Amino acid sequence: MSDAKHKSKQGQGAKSRARTQPDASGSQIAHFPQSEPLPLDCGVELAPFSLAYQTYGTLNEDRTNVVLICHALTGDQHVANTHPVTGKPGWWETMVGPGKAIDTERFFVICANHIGACMGSTGPMSLNPGTGKPYGLDFPVITIADMVRAQARLLDRLGIGDLFCVAGGSMGGMQVLEWAASYKDRVFSALPIATAARHSSQNIAFHEVGRQAIMADPDWRGGRYNDDETLPRKGLAVARMAAHITYLSDNALHRKFGRNLQDREALTFGFDADFQVESYLRHQGYTFVDRFDANSYLYMTRAMDYFDLAADHDGALAGAFEGTSTRFCCVSFTSDWLFPTGETRAVVQALNAVAANVSFVEIESDKGHDAFLLEEPELFETVSGFLTAAARRRGLARPGAGEDAEK
Amino acid sequence: MSDAKHKSKQGQGAKSRARTQPDASGSQIAHFPQSEPLPLDCGVELAPFSLAYQTYGTLNEDRTNVVLICHALTGDQHVANTHPVTGKPGWWETMVGPGKAIDTERFFVICANHIGACMGSTGPMSLNPGTGKPYGLDFPVITIADMVRAQARLLDRLGIGDLFCVAGGSMGGMQVLEWAASYKDRVFSALPIATAARHSSQNIAFHEVGRQAIMADPDWRGGRYNDDETLPRKGLAVARMAAHITYLSDNALHRKFGRNLQDREALTFGFDADFQVESYLRHQGYTFVDRFDANSYLYMTRAMDYFDLAADHDGALAGAFEGTSTRFCCVSFTSDWLFPTGETRAVVQALNAVAANVSFVEIESDKGHDAFLLEEPELFETVSGFLTAAARRRGLARPGAGEDAEK
Repeated sequence: MSDAKHKSKQGQGAKSRARTQPDASGSQIAHFPQSEPLPLDCGVELAPFSLAYQTYGTLNEDRTNVVLICHALTGDQHVANTHPVTGKPGWWETMVGPGKAIDTERFFVICANHIGACMGSTGPMSLNPGTGKPYGLDFPVITIADMVRAQARLLDRLGIGDLFCVAGGSMGGMQVLEWAASYKDRVFSALPIATAARHSSQNIAFHEVGRQAIMADPDWRGGRYNDDETLPRKGLAVARMAAHITYLSDNALHRKFGRNLQDREALTFGFDADFQVESYLRHQGYTFVDRFDANSYLYMTRAMDYFDLAADHDGALAGAFEGTSTRFCCVSFTSDWLFPTGETRAVVQALNAVAANVSFVEIESDKGHDAFLLEEPELFETVSGFLTAAARRRGLARPGAGEDAEK
Repeated sequence: MSDAKHKSKQGQGAKSRARTQPDASGSQIAHFPQSEPLPLDCGVELAPFSLAYQTYGTLNEDRTNVVLICHALTGDQHVANTHPVTGKPGWWETMVGPGKAIDTERFFVICANHIGACMGSTGPMSLNPGTGKPYGLDFPVITIADMVRAQARLLDRLGIGDLFCVAGGSMGGMQVLEWAASYKDRVFSALPIATAARHSSQNIAFHEVGRQAIMADPDWRGGRYNDDETLPRKGLAVARMAAHITYLSDNALHRKFGRNLQDREALTFGFDADFQVESYLRHQGYTFVDRFDANSYLYMTRAMDYFDLAADHDGALAGAFEGTSTRFCCVSFTSDWLFPTGETRAVVQALNAVAANVSFVEIESDKGHDAFLLEEPELFETVSGFLTAAARRRGLARPGAGEDAEK
């Protein structure tokens, strides 16, 4: 298809059957009308629905160079461009771009905002066609599998069959695993990073604290804050603060802040932010409110809590991967206590049990869970090495080289 | 002193100069009048003030068998008797009682509610004599050293000079260390358990989340909820939920709850407590509100945050213990991630640096920080062994035996 040479770096997007229009997300939007509903795990058929997405790089003639990136809980599709709301660099610019580990001179990268999220895709902020008002809590509860199903619909719409690779960290990694389990024929390689095949009891507990903080805020108003033009700012900020601690390691916090005081020489004997770490956390909480929707936070956390890939296979995770021919590279970080290495090891063991092609790298880092978003040379080398080898297998040309026939 | 034979098990208390009167705490109360102020680290002199306390066992003739127990953040003086508010057993009944590791047939045990707390001692709920209303946030910020200073005043009042032992876990352990550092001549032996000589950056961060949750509750009303007859129930519950996760280990939560559902066969695709761990946390949060004051929670967490025993010694912890002749037994738990073993090791190293008499036991347990409150046979054996040896050194008689002259 000659019209399939997508070239964009800043969300100029792909030419395709997707009806695109600009919106606050600054992204391409694929609209799926009432006649093309999305069947959800909860039994509801969501229609209409839209997905906002970004693309980077050029789709090759054979459409064999697509890398789908799945974003994390509070991430979005702005992987490698300036964020339209915050003005900050994309969340994975260290990883994705020309000459980077996920090389946009070689790969056509797509990232879609998840269904249920708040950066242009249909979610609880969207208008409920039944009422003409924002869904709020009338939005159906979404699962990781629903998010993946929606992404598959987007790819269908874009005329993309197979994925060369699907990659992501944290909740994005859950989607990578779901993709590999549910669409075995469409995934050539998979890169689940700092993730798990199920959400642990401790992780559910932390999410529940966040949800309770939001719901405790009277400005949340049972999720109808948009109708009332209020915002549960304090509740959402507290939720973010609690979550943010879990993204860092004890060591990282100690190295970064220790017991240093914030702009003062001595303790004030009060409840101001005496310590830098307090000031930092408050900042994290209150800036988050400006870019994220409180109800979406409820839905995204719930999707993670519900994730348990083994559950559909009588509790045997290997069953989820039976018959797979996908190449896996599973990555964890030593100081990640939110998704500790044991969780990745369980995935690797399940993959080994079905004789899958899998490599497993535990990266030494004291940065905690957030390491997957940060400057981690060993992560970049791991990803680059894995993709280069997989591309060779797939017969993808190197940038600047002619067609590489080696397979 | 013939009137110094204190005998009580259920808070009948000690005969002493202490003016005692019953109150809601069900405890003895020592009142210190305006003329006997408590000098605080913040510079304020607190007066009048009161301390509520419980005693167990009998003070011996020589007054050499006193064990002072320091309670943790949300604990109180009801160590080994039925709690007057909750009706539950005392928080350390596994450890303290006749024939237990801290044997009340041998030792005279005292535990006082901390200054700033809410079980009968003076705190933010108390009436401010300057206004006739509850202090609220006009209560001065209290430090661990202030709490210890108040305890010393109580002992003076009771005519008790030396402590055979001072023991406690978590924030209680901080006080044990402070006692050993500030009153070297009064502490024969010290048992700091699951604690640290300073509050870490991560721990300050978790406390800050809790404080922000309380302050975000509009019913907190700037700390003046007592005036308005409101209660920041939701905020305090969220604070407790977040903290409670840190008291348990990931493994303990997994073993206890896993991903088990609460009274249901399947996920409900909603925001009710689908999972047992959610239901458990909510219960922890909302029952806490019935027994703890929100402002006291702010003050107690702040005291822990401010604790840094090395800070008064140019950052060298060993300086705090210089010249000590106290016998130490430091205990940590392998799965305690709130006060990890490394924190205890730092204390032990400082003690070794001043050639102190110290033993160090890291107990294998998957119960997390709360292990110090739970059925941990190795903990009981450690405490019992340490106290028995120390009592022999001190020349304390064994229960049922005659005077033991061995020293």
